[in-house]
Amino acid sequence: MLYSGLMTISVAVSGASGYAGGEVLRLLAGHPNVTIGAITAHSNAGSRLGELQPHLHGLASRILEETTVENLSGHDVVFLALPHGASAEIAAQLPEGTVVIDAGADHRLQDAGAWEKFYGSAHAGTWPYGLPELPGQREALKGATRIAVPGCYPTSALLALTPGFANNLLLADDVVIVSASGTSGAGKAAKVNLIGSEVMGSMSPYGVGGGHRHTPEIEQGLSNAAGEPVTVSFTPTLAPMSRGILTTATAKVRPQAGRSVTEAELRQAWADAYDDEPFVHLLPEGQWPTTKSVQGSNHAVMQLAFDSHTGRVIVTCAIDNLTKGTAGGAVQSMNIALGLDETAGLNLQGVAP
Amino acid sequence: MLYSGLMTISVAVSGASGYAGGEVLRLLAGHPNVTIGAITAHSNAGSRLGELQPHLHGLASRILEETTVENLSGHDVVFLALPHGASAEIAAQLPEGTVVIDAGADHRLQDAGAWEKFYGSAHAGTWPYGLPELPGQREALKGATRIAVPGCYPTSALLALTPGFANNLLLADDVVIVSASGTSGAGKAAKVNLIGSEVMGSMSPYGVGGGHRHTPEIEQGLSNAAGEPVTVSFTPTLAPMSRGILTTATAKVRPQAGRSVTEAELRQAWADAYDDEPFVHLLPEGQWPTTKSVQGSNHAVMQLAFDSHTGRVIVTCAIDNLTKGTAGGAVQSMNIALGLDETAGLNLQGVAP
Amino acid sequence: MLYSGLMTISVAVSGASGYAGGEVLRLLAGHPNVTIGAITAHSNAGSRLGELQPHLHGLASRILEETTVENLSGHDVVFLALPHGASAEIAAQLPEGTVVIDAGADHRLQDAGAWEKFYGSAHAGTWPYGLPELPGQREALKGATRIAVPGCYPTSALLALTPGFANNLLLADDVVIVSASGTSGAGKAAKVNLIGSEVMGSMSPYGVGGGHRHTPEIEQGLSNAAGEPVTVSFTPTLAPMSRGILTTATAKVRPQAGRSVTEAELRQAWADAYDDEPFVHLLPEGQWPTTKSVQGSNHAVMQLAFDSHTGRVIVTCAIDNLTKGTAGGAVQSMNIALGLDETAGLNLQGVAP
Amino acid sequence: MLYSGLMTISVAVSGASGYAGGEVLRLLAGHPNVTIGAITAHSNAGSRLGELQPHLHGLASRILEETTVENLSGHDVVFLALPHGASAEIAAQLPEGTVVIDAGADHRLQDAGAWEKFYGSAHAGTWPYGLPELPGQREALKGATRIAVPGCYPTSALLALTPGFANNLLLADDVVIVSASGTSGAGKAAKVNLIGSEVMGSMSPYGVGGGHRHTPEIEQGLSNAAGEPVTVSFTPTLAPMSRGILTTATAKVRPQAGRSVTEAELRQAWADAYDDEPFVHLLPEGQWPTTKSVQGSNHAVMQLAFDSHTGRVIVTCAIDNLTKGTAGGAVQSMNIALGLDETAGLNLQGVAP
Repeated sequence: MLYSGLMTISVAVSGASGYAGGEVLRLLAGHPNVTIGAITAHSNAGSRLGELQPHLHGLASRILEETTVENLSGHDVVFLALPHGASAEIAAQLPEGTVVIDAGADHRLQDAGAWEKFYGSAHAGTWPYGLPELPGQREALKGATRIAVPGCYPTSALLALTPGFANNLLLADDVVIVSASGTSGAGKAAKVNLIGSEVMGSMSPYGVGGGHRHTPEIEQGLSNAAGEPVTVSFTPTLAPMSRGILTTATAKVRPQAGRSVTEAELRQAWADAYDDEPFVHLLPEGQWPTTKSVQGSNHAVMQLAFDSHTGRVIVTCAIDNLTKGTAGGAVQSMNIALGLDETAGLNLQGVAP
Repeated sequence: MLYSGLMTISVAVSGASGYAGGEVLRLLAGHPNVTIGAITAHSNAGSRLGELQPHLHGLASRILEETTVENLSGHDVVFLALPHGASAEIAAQLPEGTVVIDAGADHRLQDAGAWEKFYGSAHAGTWPYGLPELPGQREALKGATRIAVPGCYPTSALLALTPGFANNLLLADDVVIVSASGTSGAGKAAKVNLIGSEVMGSMSPYGVGGGHRHTPEIEQGLSNAAGEPVTVSFTPTLAPMSRGILTTATAKVRPQAGRSVTEAELRQAWADAYDDEPFVHLLPEGQWPTTKSVQGSNHAVMQLAFDSHTGRVIVTCAIDNLTKGTAGGAVQSMNIALGLDETAGLNLQGVAP
Repeated sequence: MLYSGLMTISVAVSGASGYAGGEVLRLLAGHPNVTIGAITAHSNAGSRLGELQPHLHGLASRILEETTVENLSGHDVVFLALPHGASAEIAAQLPEGTVVIDAGADHRLQDAGAWEKFYGSAHAGTWPYGLPELPGQREALKGATRIAVPGCYPTSALLALTPGFANNLLLADDVVIVSASGTSGAGKAAKVNLIGSEVMGSMSPYGVGGGHRHTPEIEQGLSNAAGEPVTVSFTPTLAPMSRGILTTATAKVRPQAGRSVTEAELRQAWADAYDDEPFVHLLPEGQWPTTKSVQGSNHAVMQLAFDSHTGRVIVTCAIDNLTKGTAGGAVQSMNIALGLDETAGLNLQGVAP
Repeated sequence: MLYSGLMTISVAVSGASGYAGGEVLRLLAGHPNVTIGAITAHSNAGSRLGELQPHLHGLASRILEETTVENLSGHDVVFLALPHGASAEIAAQLPEGTVVIDAGADHRLQDAGAWEKFYGSAHAGTWPYGLPELPGQREALKGATRIAVPGCYPTSALLALTPGFANNLLLADDVVIVSASGTSGAGKAAKVNLIGSEVMGSMSPYGVGGGHRHTPEIEQGLSNAAGEPVTVSFTPTLAPMSRGILTTATAKVRPQAGRSVTEAELRQAWADAYDDEPFVHLLPEGQWPTTKSVQGSNHAVMQLAFDSHTGRVIVTCAIDNLTKGTAGGAVQSMNIALGLDETAGLNLQGVAP
């Protein structure tokens, strides 16, 4: 199906009581080509959306329906913001012609073995990956009817390091990534370790030692760019803020024809990759990324430094985990898939201070 | 001048390196009828906007001009986000036909004596007041070419109590208002008492005892609604958050024909005042306002309770001090003045969590 | 029993996995006259304390016992940090000679009717009230073997206004109190509305309209001071910080012999009340209380202003809800009851920034 | 001079209006062997301490003296919390027998070249390093009269990795350290980028690429432990909290006699290093360090994981930057130097939540 910029697309959103679903709705509510159809949830079905997502003033009176295939059917696009496993099950029952965009993990990994190791269940197959700034990926999304939205950490990590691996500038066996995420990344879950009294004023790591499920996804993306297997040491941490990811990614620079690469050459590779991108930006020299500058927006900002003392490039990259890291990436991918203006509904500045 | 919904209006924004100016730009960047012309500042003239307001990705490459009458001239609308005194001086030199919208205090007060007492300088005259939800105020803004944007605290306080005073339901001599504001209300100022290490994890009052400059503005608005002088005890406090105001406003309820008013009657008065408003909402019973639910949006949400034990109504009202409390109110007023759709550029949901 | 400064007292602490119990332990761990005996909990019995209260490094290896009369018996002092109802039940079974200090609500209210109205159960009787800075209260605590620790909001409210009522300076029917509390006041409970993503960057009211259970406790304390019934409009709000209460309390000043009271006279009354107190301080003029300045300490700091325009005194008072508002007040009361140095174990400065 | 546990030591503290000086005073105010003599500052000389450090209730009425050699003389111990350069100048003029403890950088580095490269001035010489948990360092501090307190980042980084290097378990050329610090690490400075509106809700890096002045200090400490030069890639970030450092440190594990090391062997090395330490703790398996659990205390907590996939050990370590990272380390070093109980004045639990 071809859509013109003036057409209206009907969209259903599942998982609407959670943070990812709420952010999808926030963006779609301002999308010029979208009519929001069914809004669904599981345990909160029957509630007013205004109770559960009081910031969505324009949709406050909408009633949440049950997340079922029936309720989601009959829309041009269906967003799934469900626990892994649940989305694969629903997606399998939706018509082929429906554009299904899964904010969950079910269809991100290419390697069934990695899936089974990290998720402990049968692999549901691989869908086009909703990170259009990766090499070749924008083309792969055009006309797609099934899209796997990247994880939030992988979005920041892959944007940070792909230009280096795609240009053969980095060594594959020495990548270290440390990310700090806002607490919304841990979901809207009633857990004592997530209550404000515990997280305000505190930073803590989790999933240290390679166990976080985003690790194979990061390695997959970097390996695809490098054309060889890349191994990654990834450590996520939780920061006392609601939104945002700051990723520090570093790799050893590959000597080129016997001489060391310069910082200028590295900057050029990143600039070439992103200068025409609407949402991904290498900042001017001397300016550091901050998560606040991208809050609520679909932008990713990064800065690069070459440390000649250690032979490492260090790229720091800030995104909003719920926007570019989830719902914004999902809407951007929808726009590409349907042939809409890629930035439709996403022309939002960050909300700062 | 008459504007149709399809026309494009050229706008200049002064004070663009501060928080109010930055928020005006954030909203205008998404306004369908606006072209942003001159962006001006004082000490930061010559800088890239992207350095000073890194969240305004769409305007990052714009260069700040000097705030002068020359640079601001030649636009349909000029927003002034300047220290008080400075805006009156500039405004006096702008053509009569230019719509001038002052986010500062210079033209808010009707009473020259109150101005002189609280601001210590000569009164510059009174402009139409940019809070269209007050009785009669929307009409007063149509076609206006000079508009005084209300202070952030008065916006929340007047929205909270006006329905009661306008309907003769409240006593005029017993109003107590306590507000908690995010730190952006104190401006983008390099002061030790505002640094994060001091404000995170801390609440503190200031300007206690009637001395805050927003006190006479609140009294003016409530007195206008009541048709008699209203005195207000107002205490502002600083809360550990960037944005948002939560106002707790309470007044004694006036006995009606010898019997006490019921909570239902009070709710009805507030509902009548706001049910048709696009941006101001009395929440359903049982739901409390939160500043996060309005973050980055032009909405005001409030809840009302009647305490029969003390004979008081208590209204709690949440706004974003920079949006509905400053820049959003300014844009909304511009829309009304020019005959545009009142919500143009303001169809934004809150950014939460 | 008489204790000398060199004696050692054995203490048991129940409810040790919660915030109040944890704070009692934090203070007792540094108390020179205390040996910590049984540490008990309910659902967490059997766990290492270091898992549940990882900041209590000195007690990390202690194992939580079940909260039973048997486990709590055999100590000189028992602290109860239990839900209301539970503490009355346990306390009734502890020996009369044991000093029992209840951080819960069961024995705070004198009026059985108020208890039943606000708590919906049978009144368990009234114990000496652990706020020694109230008139006559220090004497009442000496030798006491049952002590009811005040609620956190009442602690701040009573300290703020008692000097005025005790000196007949304030009118009894026009008291308005608005308090902002850190989230630890809501307990260590797994609730979605308390998770960091929801509370960071947000302020919200709750229990508006006179329904909060601390309202009758505040009225009781002020009425005792005034010698006549005082009615109070009390609104609590939740602030984005872990600890601390900032209370804004205001009342109309009573004309004295036909003339208005001066601010100096008011200051003198508060100064007279607190100048000899080790933990309660009227700040020098021009300095505002901040919750951070009392974080982790047993101090209360306040400032006073007289607003002649409205005839009101406004007192703002900052405490740490868990220290002076709960555990610090409890330890201070224990010290007085046992004849120890009142400040033993409490010689702690605030932790700032 | 020999001190017994009952002796009283007179101490002067310079730089008392800043965060480091304030924290030294907070700890000394509770130190059983200390009398606080001169409290000095530069631009704030003449002020009441209570104005500048309102949390130091016990010292509120003290007046700040000018920071001069004269005012600091005549004490047993002098703490210097001054900008680098200033402390070396003062220290050179204090009597040899006075114990001088410098919280600044002047005397930390052994290598004059590294000093000159990173600080741009002449090297002032090297003093015993106040991190007694490093191999041999406790002995080196006994009787010392000049002590250089480590930087806050180096404290966390060296505690995290030293057991590995001291036991020849790690490779020297592949160390990556990423740290998140609370804003107090940036000092009590009136800078726009540090105000609460900017830092709340935001994370950002700075000094990326090897330029941070703590880099050579970390390399020095690890090289001393390894007995060979260690190179370190160090990236500091600023987190939205007042206090605390969370350091993620990772290095490749050195194969031992042709086989891979096990996680158990690694844990054993760290346990051997710290099991007898009063302030440094390897947490039980499954428990992650949080900065809140050490807030206001002299403790360091860490966890270790071995990632066999990448051959890396990852150690995450949390400290309070102002306590163990500055003032607590300073007081601990003083205690050792003077032969006092090493934990005197430091028996404080963390302040949480």
